[in-house]
Amino acid sequence: MTPQRVTLITLGVRDLAAAREFYARLGWREHGESQPGIAFFQLQGSALALFDRAALAADQGRASAALGTGAMSLAQNFTSEAEVDQALSLALEAGGTLLKSPEKVFWGGYSGYWSDPDGHVWELAFNPFWPLARDGSLTLPEA
Amino acid sequence: MTPQRVTLITLGVRDLAAAREFYARLGWREHGESQPGIAFFQLQGSALALFDRAALAADQGRASAALGTGAMSLAQNFTSEAEVDQALSLALEAGGTLLKSPEKVFWGGYSGYWSDPDGHVWELAFNPFWPLARDGSLTLPEA
Repeated sequence: MTPQRVTLITLGVRDLAAAREFYARLGWREHGESQPGIAFFQLQGSALALFDRAALAADQGRASAALGTGAMSLAQNFTSEAEVDQALSLALEAGGTLLKSPEKVFWGGYSGYWSDPDGHVWELAFNPFWPLARDGSLTLPEA
Repeated sequence: MTPQRVTLITLGVRDLAAAREFYARLGWREHGESQPGIAFFQLQGSALALFDRAALAADQGRASAALGTGAMSLAQNFTSEAEVDQALSLALEAGGTLLKSPEKVFWGGYSGYWSDPDGHVWELAFNPFWPLARDGSLTLPEA
């Protein structure tokens, strides 16, 4: 079987310097593994990279492909509605685009969406049924 | 600052039943948190969901948006080239589409790409400079 594993999430971006500045405005710190052509950030158990979109298409073996965004969202969960609101404010101040203001949702939590300058979609959520570990990692609860 | 955190990766899919079957063929096991309208899988420190693409667009607050794929890749790293090859074989047997056969790459590793039936891009890689923990999680190495 293929392990249920995501080691690295790579976001293809139009302007790597601008994307680095955007994520820096969010307060993200690049890891020392970063190089001029790629930025790495440590997550909880995995990592995230920013990489030139055309270079990503070439790396995928389809240099001329037009890559699209939006059909995948990356959620950041928090431990309160106030934290969600704070994170959204910061994202919009940094230059993110509001997609949906946070609101109470049918599954019992609180959730909103924004997108980064390249159209990558981030969800901000508080899920009272999914407690986070102290390091921010998530283990889905047993029934 | 916004924490460097991805709690949940959600893939928007055209046919949720078909997507569930596809990931089951990869050997992935749904977590008990799954519901008829959404499938959850535990990762290392985070989780992955399969969710109807139109429902995802609506959830993002833009019900009529055409969501695109390809500008974000999800890498699975392994501890050898042989493991990469095995994982690719399984993905193609399950119905994945080959984008690039694994090959030695300039950064000193071994990498290939495939896409799932909805166009979500997976990279399979062996990076000798990034050892994985026993549970498959990644902590970027210090210089």
